[in-house]
Amino acid sequence: MDKIKIIYSEEPVLDNPILVEGLPGVGNVGKLAAEHLLDQIEAVKFADIYSVHFPPQVIVDDEGVVKLVNNELYYSKADGNHPDLIIMVGDYQGLTPEGQYEISDAVLGIARKFNVSLIFTLGGYGIGKMVETPRVLGAATSKELVEEMKEKGVIFSKGEPGSGIVGASGLLLGLGKIAGQRAVCLMGETSGYFVDPKGAEAVLRILANILNVQIDFSELETKAEQIDLITSKLKEAEAPAEPRREDLGYIG
Amino acid sequence: MDKIKIIYSEEPVLDNPILVEGLPGVGNVGKLAAEHLLDQIEAVKFADIYSVHFPPQVIVDDEGVVKLVNNELYYSKADGNHPDLIIMVGDYQGLTPEGQYEISDAVLGIARKFNVSLIFTLGGYGIGKMVETPRVLGAATSKELVEEMKEKGVIFSKGEPGSGIVGASGLLLGLGKIAGQRAVCLMGETSGYFVDPKGAEAVLRILANILNVQIDFSELETKAEQIDLITSKLKEAEAPAEPRREDLGYIG
Amino acid sequence: MDKIKIIYSEEPVLDNPILVEGLPGVGNVGKLAAEHLLDQIEAVKFADIYSVHFPPQVIVDDEGVVKLVNNELYYSKADGNHPDLIIMVGDYQGLTPEGQYEISDAVLGIARKFNVSLIFTLGGYGIGKMVETPRVLGAATSKELVEEMKEKGVIFSKGEPGSGIVGASGLLLGLGKIAGQRAVCLMGETSGYFVDPKGAEAVLRILANILNVQIDFSELETKAEQIDLITSKLKEAEAPAEPRREDLGYIG
Amino acid sequence: MDKIKIIYSEEPVLDNPILVEGLPGVGNVGKLAAEHLLDQIEAVKFADIYSVHFPPQVIVDDEGVVKLVNNELYYSKADGNHPDLIIMVGDYQGLTPEGQYEISDAVLGIARKFNVSLIFTLGGYGIGKMVETPRVLGAATSKELVEEMKEKGVIFSKGEPGSGIVGASGLLLGLGKIAGQRAVCLMGETSGYFVDPKGAEAVLRILANILNVQIDFSELETKAEQIDLITSKLKEAEAPAEPRREDLGYIG
Repeated sequence: MDKIKIIYSEEPVLDNPILVEGLPGVGNVGKLAAEHLLDQIEAVKFADIYSVHFPPQVIVDDEGVVKLVNNELYYSKADGNHPDLIIMVGDYQGLTPEGQYEISDAVLGIARKFNVSLIFTLGGYGIGKMVETPRVLGAATSKELVEEMKEKGVIFSKGEPGSGIVGASGLLLGLGKIAGQRAVCLMGETSGYFVDPKGAEAVLRILANILNVQIDFSELETKAEQIDLITSKLKEAEAPAEPRREDLGYIG
Repeated sequence: MDKIKIIYSEEPVLDNPILVEGLPGVGNVGKLAAEHLLDQIEAVKFADIYSVHFPPQVIVDDEGVVKLVNNELYYSKADGNHPDLIIMVGDYQGLTPEGQYEISDAVLGIARKFNVSLIFTLGGYGIGKMVETPRVLGAATSKELVEEMKEKGVIFSKGEPGSGIVGASGLLLGLGKIAGQRAVCLMGETSGYFVDPKGAEAVLRILANILNVQIDFSELETKAEQIDLITSKLKEAEAPAEPRREDLGYIG
Repeated sequence: MDKIKIIYSEEPVLDNPILVEGLPGVGNVGKLAAEHLLDQIEAVKFADIYSVHFPPQVIVDDEGVVKLVNNELYYSKADGNHPDLIIMVGDYQGLTPEGQYEISDAVLGIARKFNVSLIFTLGGYGIGKMVETPRVLGAATSKELVEEMKEKGVIFSKGEPGSGIVGASGLLLGLGKIAGQRAVCLMGETSGYFVDPKGAEAVLRILANILNVQIDFSELETKAEQIDLITSKLKEAEAPAEPRREDLGYIG
Repeated sequence: MDKIKIIYSEEPVLDNPILVEGLPGVGNVGKLAAEHLLDQIEAVKFADIYSVHFPPQVIVDDEGVVKLVNNELYYSKADGNHPDLIIMVGDYQGLTPEGQYEISDAVLGIARKFNVSLIFTLGGYGIGKMVETPRVLGAATSKELVEEMKEKGVIFSKGEPGSGIVGASGLLLGLGKIAGQRAVCLMGETSGYFVDPKGAEAVLRILANILNVQIDFSELETKAEQIDLITSKLKEAEAPAEPRREDLGYIG
C-alpha cells in the first residue's frame, strides 16, 4: 500500500496558480481562513490526498455515507481579479513527524506539477493570552518575498515566532525552499485557547488583498462575536476555567 | 520480513460472498457479534492474517500449544437460505494508524480475490451511558446502500456517530469506497464501559435478517443478563465505581 | 542502512544444534538463566546481531572501549554429554512490536541456516507475589513437544499464562510454528518485582537435565539468597515499599 | 521522499580530517562546545543534513526567512597548527531510535567519503548534582585510542558512565567501531539541570589541546558565571525550585 495516495478527479489546466494551504492547527486559524476563502470563491475539488499518516478513520456525512479522512485540493480559475488558485484544506495533518514530511513533500510535488508560482500557508501564532486586534506575522523562503509581504502589511518581527513553525505550514516553506519553490507563511495572532475566527479574519484580510479576492467576512465576524461572548462570560465567572478547545492538536 | 503475511490453508470457490468483519473495539460489540455468528453456522477456517502490526505475542491454548496472534478468515457455503459468507474475526487490530491502514488494505485485497459483493463491518457505538434497548446505527459507502439498509431497520441518524468511525470497521468502508467496493458498517449502541453482549445481539439480529441466517441468541442473552446483574449491583453500591473493562482498546 | 545486521566472526559447523534464547524480561529470569548456562559451559561467540530496533546506545566496558548494544550468539560443541548448542543472550529486546517481529524473524533465519533442531526460549512468568518454590511452566509449537516436555517435569497448566507470552520468547515460537520450526518456551515463576535468580535456577535445572549439561548452581543460589535477604528486610520494614527493579521492561 | 537528504554546497578537498560532532544533549555540553569551537576558527559550511527523523519544523531567522531544522557540516582547513577539521552541529538529534541510527550511519558515510581519520563526539555526563570542576570522561572505539586519550588528560573511569552513552555521541562510536572507523567520545561532567557552559569549556579545553587549536574561552566563561549567579540565587531562595531547562531532551 502506498503511504500517500493522490486521486485526481480532474486535471485542471492552470496558469502559474497560487497555492493556499490551511489545515488544523493553533486556534484552527489556518483551517478557518482557508475554508472561508473556499466558501467565498467559485472553486472545484480536483484531488484527494489519502495517507496512512492520517488517523485510521472515516467521517460520516449527513446522509450516512462515509468519507476517508483526507486533505483536499480545489482550484479556482482566474476571474479577471484574482489569479488561478489552488486551495488545500483538510481534516488532519500527518500524525507523525515522518508523516508530516512525506505529506508536505507530496504537496510540493503537486505544486510543481501545476507550475505553482507561490505558496501561502496559513496558521495561527499562539501567544497564550487574549488578543483584541490580532497582528499577522509572516515568514518566507527568501528576503525578496519578505520585502514584498511587508508592503502588504505582513509583520516580520525579530524573534517571533521564537519556536519556529511546526507542521505543514512550516514544512511547505522549509522543504519548498530547498526545492527552489517560493512560499510564505501568514500567521494570525491568537490566544491558542479557542478556535479563533478573529485570527482567521486577520489572516484572510491580508491574503484577500494580495490575491485580489472579494471576501464577505460577516460569517467569520459572527463566529468571532460568539467566541467573544463565551470568553467574556468565562471572565465574569472569574474561575480559572479550563478553556474549551476544539481540534487544536497541531501547531502552525 | 513481510509486514503482513496471509497464509491460506484452503482456497475455497465462493459465489460473490458477503464478508462480515468483527474485531475488538468499543464494548467488543463487533467481535462478540461476529464470533457468535461463527458459532451458529457451519464455517471452515481458510486463512490466517499475521502482521508485524499486531502485538509481538502468542496465545497458549489449553493443551499448551502456541498460536501467534492474528486475524482469521472463515467461509460458510450457501445453504439455500444464506449466501456464501466470509467471516473475519481476530484477537487484535493493528497497533498503529499505519498498521491499521495496511491490514485493512490487505483485507480488501482478499475481498477482491474472492469477488466479495458486499462487506459488513460490525462495531459498537459508545454513548457513555447504559442503554436499555440499543439501536443499530449504520454508515455505508453509497446512498443506495444507505437506502437498502434503512429498509432493514438500520438507523441512519444525522450527526451520529459525530466523531466518525475509527479502526478496521471504518477503514474497510473508507478504503473500500475508494476502490469501488460496497460496504456497510453496523454499530450497536453501547455504554462502552463493559463488554456488551446486548449491543452485539442487536447488531446480529439485523445482520441475521439481512443474510437470512438462523441464529440462536440464548447464549448472548445469558451473557447480557450476567452483565446486567453486575451493573445493577454496582448501582446498588452507589459508589462512583470505576467500571470493569475488558479489551476495549479499539473503537469501531 | 539495514534494519538488522548480523555479523559473523566465525561460521561454525554444527550438528543439528539446539538453540537456547534468554533475553531481558519478567524478573530477568530468561537472561539470568541463559547467561548462567553460558558461564558454565565452553562456548565461543560467533555472531552479533545489531538493529535499529535496539536503543541508540553504546555500553562502555571497564577499559573504556564501547560496544554497540546487541544480541549475541555463542556456540558450544557437543562434549559427549550435551549436543551442539547455540546460546543467544543480549542487552535488549526490540523496542517496538515491528522491531520484535523483525528480530525474531532474523533469529529464526539463523536457526535455519545452522539446521537448528529445537529452540528453547527462557522467560519469567510473573504472578505478582513472592514464590517459595517456583514452578516451570511451558508452551510449545506442537502437542508432541508438549508431551515430551511434560516427561521432563515442565508444567503445562490450562489457562497459564493467561495473557500469552509477549516478546522474543513468544515470537520465536509463534513465528517458528508458522515456518515449521520446533520450539519450546520455559517460564520460571517469579513475582516479577525483582531480578529473580531463583526463577532462573528453576528454569535452568529443567533445561540442564534436558540438554544433559552439568551446572554448578552455587552462584545463582548466592544471588537468590541476597535477594531473599533484601525482600525479608523490606517485609520487616512493613512499609508498602516500592520494590527495586532492574531492567524489567520486557515480558517473556 | 528520502529519509535523509544530504545537500552539499561545496565538496572540499580535505587531508584526513578530524570530525568533531556536538549536538543537543545532557546540559547541552556537546552543542555548546562544538559551536564555540566553530566560533573560534575559520570554518565554511559545506553540507546540510535534512531528515524526516527531525521535527517537522522550520526556524525563522531575524530577517523572517525560514530554515528547515537540520544538522550542518563545516570544514576548516589546516592552518599550520591544527589539522583539517570537519565540525558538525545542529538543532536536533533524530526523534526515534531508528532515526538516530539512520542519521549516524549517514554521518559515518560522510566521514568515509572525506577520509576522516578520527571522530570526536562531544557530550555531557549528567551526575545529578552541581559540579565545581568538571572532569572530562572518555570512551573510545579501541584500547589504543583509550591510551592516547589518557595521555591527553581524558579520564577513563571504570563504571562511568554506567548507563552507557545514548544518542549520536554514542552511535558514532558504536556504528563506527563496526565499520572500522576510529572515534572518541569526550563527556564533560554536568549536573544535567542547566545548560552548562562550564562542562562545555572543560571538554573544549581538552579537545583544543589535542587538535592544537587556540581558543578564547572568555565567552563561555561569562556564560558560566551567569549560570552560577542564577544557581546561587536559587540556593539562597532555598526553595526546592524546579531548575530552568533548555532543550535537554537528549542524552550524550
